[in-house]
Amino acid sequence: MERNEFRGIFPYLVTPLDEKGRLKEQVLADLVDHLIRKGVHGLTPLGSTGEAPYLDWDTKRRTIEVVVKSAAGRVPVVAGVCNTSTHGAIREAAETEKLGVDGILTMMPGYFPLSDQQVVAHFRAVAKAVSCPITLYTNPKFQTWDFTVEALKQLTDEPNILYLKYASGDVGKIMSIVTTLGHRLRIFSDTSSVPLFMFLIGAVGWMSGPACVIPVQSIELYEAASRKRWDEAAELQKKQWPLNDAFQRFSLSACIKAGLEMQGFPVGPPLPPQKQLDAEGRRVLESILRNIGAL
Amino acid sequence: MERNEFRGIFPYLVTPLDEKGRLKEQVLADLVDHLIRKGVHGLTPLGSTGEAPYLDWDTKRRTIEVVVKSAAGRVPVVAGVCNTSTHGAIREAAETEKLGVDGILTMMPGYFPLSDQQVVAHFRAVAKAVSCPITLYTNPKFQTWDFTVEALKQLTDEPNILYLKYASGDVGKIMSIVTTLGHRLRIFSDTSSVPLFMFLIGAVGWMSGPACVIPVQSIELYEAASRKRWDEAAELQKKQWPLNDAFQRFSLSACIKAGLEMQGFPVGPPLPPQKQLDAEGRRVLESILRNIGAL
Amino acid sequence: MERNEFRGIFPYLVTPLDEKGRLKEQVLADLVDHLIRKGVHGLTPLGSTGEAPYLDWDTKRRTIEVVVKSAAGRVPVVAGVCNTSTHGAIREAAETEKLGVDGILTMMPGYFPLSDQQVVAHFRAVAKAVSCPITLYTNPKFQTWDFTVEALKQLTDEPNILYLKYASGDVGKIMSIVTTLGHRLRIFSDTSSVPLFMFLIGAVGWMSGPACVIPVQSIELYEAASRKRWDEAAELQKKQWPLNDAFQRFSLSACIKAGLEMQGFPVGPPLPPQKQLDAEGRRVLESILRNIGAL
Amino acid sequence: MERNEFRGIFPYLVTPLDEKGRLKEQVLADLVDHLIRKGVHGLTPLGSTGEAPYLDWDTKRRTIEVVVKSAAGRVPVVAGVCNTSTHGAIREAAETEKLGVDGILTMMPGYFPLSDQQVVAHFRAVAKAVSCPITLYTNPKFQTWDFTVEALKQLTDEPNILYLKYASGDVGKIMSIVTTLGHRLRIFSDTSSVPLFMFLIGAVGWMSGPACVIPVQSIELYEAASRKRWDEAAELQKKQWPLNDAFQRFSLSACIKAGLEMQGFPVGPPLPPQKQLDAEGRRVLESILRNIGAL
Repeated sequence: MERNEFRGIFPYLVTPLDEKGRLKEQVLADLVDHLIRKGVHGLTPLGSTGEAPYLDWDTKRRTIEVVVKSAAGRVPVVAGVCNTSTHGAIREAAETEKLGVDGILTMMPGYFPLSDQQVVAHFRAVAKAVSCPITLYTNPKFQTWDFTVEALKQLTDEPNILYLKYASGDVGKIMSIVTTLGHRLRIFSDTSSVPLFMFLIGAVGWMSGPACVIPVQSIELYEAASRKRWDEAAELQKKQWPLNDAFQRFSLSACIKAGLEMQGFPVGPPLPPQKQLDAEGRRVLESILRNIGAL
Repeated sequence: MERNEFRGIFPYLVTPLDEKGRLKEQVLADLVDHLIRKGVHGLTPLGSTGEAPYLDWDTKRRTIEVVVKSAAGRVPVVAGVCNTSTHGAIREAAETEKLGVDGILTMMPGYFPLSDQQVVAHFRAVAKAVSCPITLYTNPKFQTWDFTVEALKQLTDEPNILYLKYASGDVGKIMSIVTTLGHRLRIFSDTSSVPLFMFLIGAVGWMSGPACVIPVQSIELYEAASRKRWDEAAELQKKQWPLNDAFQRFSLSACIKAGLEMQGFPVGPPLPPQKQLDAEGRRVLESILRNIGAL
Repeated sequence: MERNEFRGIFPYLVTPLDEKGRLKEQVLADLVDHLIRKGVHGLTPLGSTGEAPYLDWDTKRRTIEVVVKSAAGRVPVVAGVCNTSTHGAIREAAETEKLGVDGILTMMPGYFPLSDQQVVAHFRAVAKAVSCPITLYTNPKFQTWDFTVEALKQLTDEPNILYLKYASGDVGKIMSIVTTLGHRLRIFSDTSSVPLFMFLIGAVGWMSGPACVIPVQSIELYEAASRKRWDEAAELQKKQWPLNDAFQRFSLSACIKAGLEMQGFPVGPPLPPQKQLDAEGRRVLESILRNIGAL
Repeated sequence: MERNEFRGIFPYLVTPLDEKGRLKEQVLADLVDHLIRKGVHGLTPLGSTGEAPYLDWDTKRRTIEVVVKSAAGRVPVVAGVCNTSTHGAIREAAETEKLGVDGILTMMPGYFPLSDQQVVAHFRAVAKAVSCPITLYTNPKFQTWDFTVEALKQLTDEPNILYLKYASGDVGKIMSIVTTLGHRLRIFSDTSSVPLFMFLIGAVGWMSGPACVIPVQSIELYEAASRKRWDEAAELQKKQWPLNDAFQRFSLSACIKAGLEMQGFPVGPPLPPQKQLDAEGRRVLESILRNIGAL
């Protein structure tokens, strides 16, 4: 894999924080080292699971620095840039690139409604602000806008817009994107879109919150898919699915952080207003992780 | 395949109607014969593509009679029962069974909000009204309610509730249903959920509007999946997908009816307030059908 | 008030039904007589509260006959026509007019998506099928479509489309309709849009499920508004509002039917899959009706 | 009016910005002075119209400083605090209070789903961080969460949570809030909820983007309502409504900023990804402002 060709399992890193919201740098460094030793193919700090929409720039900058330093070139780092303003996103993207990342993942929660024209202008401007590869990210459940196929098509004019992580779970729309733009945009699966299926239609990898707690199992699924052992991959996917049901029921970052605590990484609670997993949630999660072989 | 075990490609039959909304019986009989000769594994009159929510009981009864007679036992007939009232659904289901069908597909468009308890009571009552196998159908895009996994679980108490056609496109929810209830409910794919994926996780067949116009191609995809030739199946699925984009853009029954007219079946226009495919739509559809090899 | 000029309180009549769904004709006749004696200005059988989307044509026809006969010309009868098919709606509207009603209220639950062009064509066709005044009805919460201001504007070409009952609760859209079309379309309030407000911006009346159980209080509010005693009207509106909170919590037709039973009208339960008000709901409702002075 | 009792017209101030997103301080100071001279009762910088979700803290802090200094105690200043993280909102609220504001308006765009418990904990924490009065703000169209009546009820435990600006346009829910909590929470209208109606049911004022361009007309409506001249108020409301239709069609901050430019305040364009009003929009807006007497 070339330095700028991303492929495989990229854990969506949690951001370890103490009760006051301060970065726990050593825990983050340890987690990065642990995941690389387990075999992940890259790292994505500051995505949804990384609680990027809740963090200020100082915490985000320090997070990137720690991840880049700990990864030490062993795997590519694709860091999230999360900003609703175009000026802010441009500035964050440029500063993020300077910190030594290999790529950028763009998030934009949004507020007022946006036309395709405005969406395209925003991401075009961010892409032009850096020279590294851009992974477009969209999660319509938590945003006030979404990419149309037409907007994505226009954005492929930008030579460094190379990847898309489309977290919608709307499998028909994903098929339309893949059949229309799959030759030009490489697709990363999220979890809710079911990676098994995304691999089958050509996804190059999986940017995944769960991969923080089940890195080995995620790699196993990716490799079965890479070798076109689809029935084996389907069994692995089904076996892992109860973890997703838990995310739906108890909230994503609370589950991942609680799972990592069970595995010995004191990553702390999610940032309020999110809340820590309660006793019932911990019980359910622990049982699922045991069944999957992750505890 | 036993008479009561449904599996494979079941075209969601259009209902051929003249300008006044009267059934074109001979066209329907010809279409049934044509599709069976092409190799379909069953027939489903009076689903969404059959415009069931727009038809009165007399037209529906006559449609079932014609399909049962023309099929003449060559393939199973699973007829739709579409009624928002429980009393009405029970009555229609019982009368439909008497007309000689092999199974029933239940649709309920809904109006006022329904709790799980009410949803379960409705479908339980319909199931008890007949002895043939029931296929539960839900399409949350066009309804005012949806099945929860918990409601489906309760409904599996009814011994003749054997199948589910879940037309949501929400692939995460489908995974949750399959991993929780897949051992008990056999799943039929709709089109928007992407049959390729549904087959991979264990669906037994595809109840499909498009199969009226692309029966051979639908069977080809089903058979590749049955033989676990997943990469071949993925290619076939991608090749067929532009037809789905056309449905999204121009409306489902207008496209299927226009496509059948192009193939020589004078099935007439969809019932108003739906409208006939316009010139631009016909041009796009014709080009897609030629590419797929269906014209 | 001329025979064809509708104004004031029009109870959305419940349809009294026994456990098997058969019309309780005498109860309906008694309720009609009771409401007219209480002073209501008109009657609207077969709206949402009348459970029209759950009834077959025979029950609907008999309901209209009973209401027309019992009203005996004392107040106008505006009957609902509820049908998703244009052919069906035309046929029902024509037959309804022949039964001697003074006006028609059009409902269309919908199924497949509809463009403005299709919505306009549907209601235009229904309007042309009769000579009596048409009240357009829309309730986007329970339908799969909604009127745009532009569609309503086009429909005012039809000389007998004279009224609109817009049950959205989206007060901004109502303002846009009133300021654009208020000179041409007379507006009836529903309950969720808050009649107080609708009267203030010019509504001519209130088609109301609750008016079945609180006819006197509804008339009182209407009359305060008619005399421009707005502060008094606001107090009356606030006093009645807890009834609406109960509808939201326990479902509309279950509440109205239970309230009428408490008042001595054995109207029976709502049609399944709707369910009867439970003990907790009856307790809450009874307390509210006592506070309002309706028990 | 006591310093801490807010009442009347509070323009939701635009934030004047140059092409690079830098605050135009003199323009803001001039606008503040102009609006106070026109008679507004207070000022609300950094609400939705103020583009708060798009601004960094430095720009927000400087905006508050300029507004507080220009207002010079002539009218109360209620500044927006907009932050999705509880830690961030607490910090911003405390710093905002130190800048000399008279009250705080809390915005929280949100990202992951929130339970009532989490919503209550967030706003409780912000309220405890300051001693000035809190105005809760919610706009479910642009957020990923909303207040329930129950959550609001719990929040009234906090002695400084005194006001609510509820921008939903769902008039039924507003009635439920007013009848349940109106004795404890003073309500400010937004524009889409139709101030005329909010005043009639007891709102104490109107926090309003449009009041930046139509301050005199907004005060006129407020005063007609205060004097209980409801029919006059209704006429004024209807006359102003076309401005709201323009906001829906062309986007809020683009319209307000363009209108102010027409009035001689060079406030600049809205921040990207929002876009400036186009020629057609300017033509429509200019015509509306002339009709209202604001140009």
